[in-house]
Amino acid sequence: MKEERFVTQITPKSEDFSRWYLDLIRRAELADYAPMKGMMVIRPYGYAIWENIQRLLDRRIKDSGHLNAYFPLFIPESFLRKEMEHLKGFAPEVAWVTHGGDDELEERLAVRPTSEAIIGFMYSRWIQSWRDLPVLINQWANVVRWEKVTRPFLRTTEFLWQEGHTAHETLEEAQAETLRILEMYREFVETELAIPVLYGRKSEREKFAGAEATYAIEALMSDGKALQMGTSHNLGQHFARVFDIKFEDRNQKLQYVWQTSWGVSTRLIGALVMAHGDDSGLVFPPRVAPIQVVIVPISIGNWKETVLPRARELKSALERAGLRVLLDERTEYTPGWKFSDWEMRGVPLRLEIGPRDVKNNQVIAVRRDRQEKTALNMSGIEGRVNELLAVIQIALFERALSFQKENTREVESYEDFKRTIEDKRGFIRAFWCGREECEAKVKEETMATVRVLPLESEEKQSGRCLCCGQEARTIAYFARAY
Amino acid sequence: MKEERFVTQITPKSEDFSRWYLDLIRRAELADYAPMKGMMVIRPYGYAIWENIQRLLDRRIKDSGHLNAYFPLFIPESFLRKEMEHLKGFAPEVAWVTHGGDDELEERLAVRPTSEAIIGFMYSRWIQSWRDLPVLINQWANVVRWEKVTRPFLRTTEFLWQEGHTAHETLEEAQAETLRILEMYREFVETELAIPVLYGRKSEREKFAGAEATYAIEALMSDGKALQMGTSHNLGQHFARVFDIKFEDRNQKLQYVWQTSWGVSTRLIGALVMAHGDDSGLVFPPRVAPIQVVIVPISIGNWKETVLPRARELKSALERAGLRVLLDERTEYTPGWKFSDWEMRGVPLRLEIGPRDVKNNQVIAVRRDRQEKTALNMSGIEGRVNELLAVIQIALFERALSFQKENTREVESYEDFKRTIEDKRGFIRAFWCGREECEAKVKEETMATVRVLPLESEEKQSGRCLCCGQEARTIAYFARAY
Repeated sequence: MKEERFVTQITPKSEDFSRWYLDLIRRAELADYAPMKGMMVIRPYGYAIWENIQRLLDRRIKDSGHLNAYFPLFIPESFLRKEMEHLKGFAPEVAWVTHGGDDELEERLAVRPTSEAIIGFMYSRWIQSWRDLPVLINQWANVVRWEKVTRPFLRTTEFLWQEGHTAHETLEEAQAETLRILEMYREFVETELAIPVLYGRKSEREKFAGAEATYAIEALMSDGKALQMGTSHNLGQHFARVFDIKFEDRNQKLQYVWQTSWGVSTRLIGALVMAHGDDSGLVFPPRVAPIQVVIVPISIGNWKETVLPRARELKSALERAGLRVLLDERTEYTPGWKFSDWEMRGVPLRLEIGPRDVKNNQVIAVRRDRQEKTALNMSGIEGRVNELLAVIQIALFERALSFQKENTREVESYEDFKRTIEDKRGFIRAFWCGREECEAKVKEETMATVRVLPLESEEKQSGRCLCCGQEARTIAYFARAY
Repeated sequence: MKEERFVTQITPKSEDFSRWYLDLIRRAELADYAPMKGMMVIRPYGYAIWENIQRLLDRRIKDSGHLNAYFPLFIPESFLRKEMEHLKGFAPEVAWVTHGGDDELEERLAVRPTSEAIIGFMYSRWIQSWRDLPVLINQWANVVRWEKVTRPFLRTTEFLWQEGHTAHETLEEAQAETLRILEMYREFVETELAIPVLYGRKSEREKFAGAEATYAIEALMSDGKALQMGTSHNLGQHFARVFDIKFEDRNQKLQYVWQTSWGVSTRLIGALVMAHGDDSGLVFPPRVAPIQVVIVPISIGNWKETVLPRARELKSALERAGLRVLLDERTEYTPGWKFSDWEMRGVPLRLEIGPRDVKNNQVIAVRRDRQEKTALNMSGIEGRVNELLAVIQIALFERALSFQKENTREVESYEDFKRTIEDKRGFIRAFWCGREECEAKVKEETMATVRVLPLESEEKQSGRCLCCGQEARTIAYFARAY
């Protein structure tokens, strides 16, 4: 009976993708709604993914020469007002602190929606000479954006992220940093999250408020909608002029620094759910899975005397090999119930062990990504499990890559474009004249937006704009997006 | 000239401890003032200490069965108002969010000063049965308290901390958890920060707003003032009743859960500065030092061809051995200037290498905690450096422990108490009748407060109250405190 109730609690993905997503997040205890509109609680099983993401990405951030620091949560209103383009972009979304204890503040404080303004101010104090450059700083922090429509992980009033903020001597260096980070994000997301991405520049309309140019990685979720997974901005001298961040250059001349900023957020957890999940629930790539291997003892006969000790040894052996392992010893559930529970929770590999397996010195391995069963000999099992996890990691990436390729299309005409977006979603690769007018029209008529302009499009190419039919030199990937 | 200017920038510790502290934090780039009153920026060198603290403490938190999660930054005013004692304690310090974008909120939101209220609400949803218990959750987060008087790391409007929140079936289990965490904090601070602590219960007056009992670890700073380093609260059923956190017990009866909460914060960084620092600057214990070993090449003759390659090899060898190493290759400073710069920044071990050392296949090691020079042979140097660092870690603890012992006194009379506090500071161990009246009088007349009531005082003992002279069964440690 429990098993039945359990299955009915998750809406099938094919029936209602959005419902499936929300059901799964709550049922698998990744997150829960907080009592305040648009806010969520990240529960331990969801937070463990964030910790894995942090650990794996932080290593890359540090290996590329960046240092972590921490800047204040609050930003004085006047700081945001210094930079009108930035303000316009963020003011509608700012949560304002007006009182400290019983006293009204002289100046309202914004709860940071992003930290360019406060970091710019501090950099103006810290940077004097070219010798102080580059400044390569990152922070892991919470930010707040007062969003009207929210969805757990994808768009929440508060979210966790990292934001890198760098300052350089030249435009070229800043641009190189912007692209280096874009590549770091691509490699990170593809390697660790097993999610293939498109990468490139954002259109003017879609770029960060205050940036010269924004670059992004974009992935296709399994419902055919695109998700922006991370952004890297070349800020030019925008904030340097506003916050007066000047340095004496190698010729003793005062110059404004060139800056970048870049970030990824807890949204990546939502991407994992939507890119890999299926009707049975979550499917986590082994490298970021909170639990990589679950051991389920088959509770028949005198299993507590025979099977359980062997299962415990197995757990210890795998843990010694550095794996994240759970042994499900609960007696109030049947093995069958546990199988579907851990499938729902997305554990990449299940090891079943029963009395017969003990006799045969083996366990039965079941991959989450396909329902194949394999008997593994207990001797040297750590190596075999590690291999299987590596295989699963690659298989998930390959599956997502095939999906992305199958769902990236070219179209013959604007009518074809509209039909394709409506019926099939996915990415559409098309020439675009580059005018905001066409971009706006496409969005209004199809709900599709320019996701990225691939970096190669800066080479010479030409064709006809998908919308107005005029000569176009820019290739763009369009999609409906989260 | 540079060298001179540098030395004059730090006030000697003996002259003005408070000025010394502030000078050092800015000069060593641990932190900087933010433009908003009472807020600070934790710079990379300071944040690296926090990262080491997080890594070392998080391991202990997880090894003792706790899981990390993340709860919202904002708490509705009505939630805080549910618990009057808690509210009274925190309301004067709350930063209030009143607007989201252009809209005034229907209900004000507190920026969390601590998270009992929001976590209590969530636990009431998650806990149904004794099978759901214990709940052992921790979060790493920022909190805000609108403080009137602030000082970097010790008391800032925003600070970073971890807060554990647990729920249990029985009072006994909650009390065991409270004391287990107190012991975890003691062991962590003594082992990793090399700071000896006193531990025990807080008086009613000093306990956490909303707790049954608060336990704390307290350390003596090198100016003789005490600093509370961490607290562990037995919350009883206080929040369970307010937020209706009930579970069905093993006899199918509904019961309120028993809770604990506990935390340490970025204040620990201030403690490191004040417990170990000297007139030359910071002194970091190796286990949490951002840089454990600095290599300074002696820049004479053709050092770039002879010394520098050897210094680089040395750096690689030490890094391979898992050490945090910096090689100071800067050409614009003399070796002497670098020596005092890295001393000021508290690097535990300096390795000097010059042309003669290259010839003799050695380096000169200089400990930060004493100005001894030792020649180390290059072969097998990783082991020798590791040993030296372990020795320094212990030496710092022993030095601080001697200081604590020398500055923990018993007194003959209240007059003696007043004189000792005024002239010598330190801890004073004395009997106390336990009445708030005496506690308040002592505070008013001497600025000393009850820091902890040692756990052993619960055994039978008796004496005369240091203040009123009545029979007293409680021993208390008094001190002036931060």
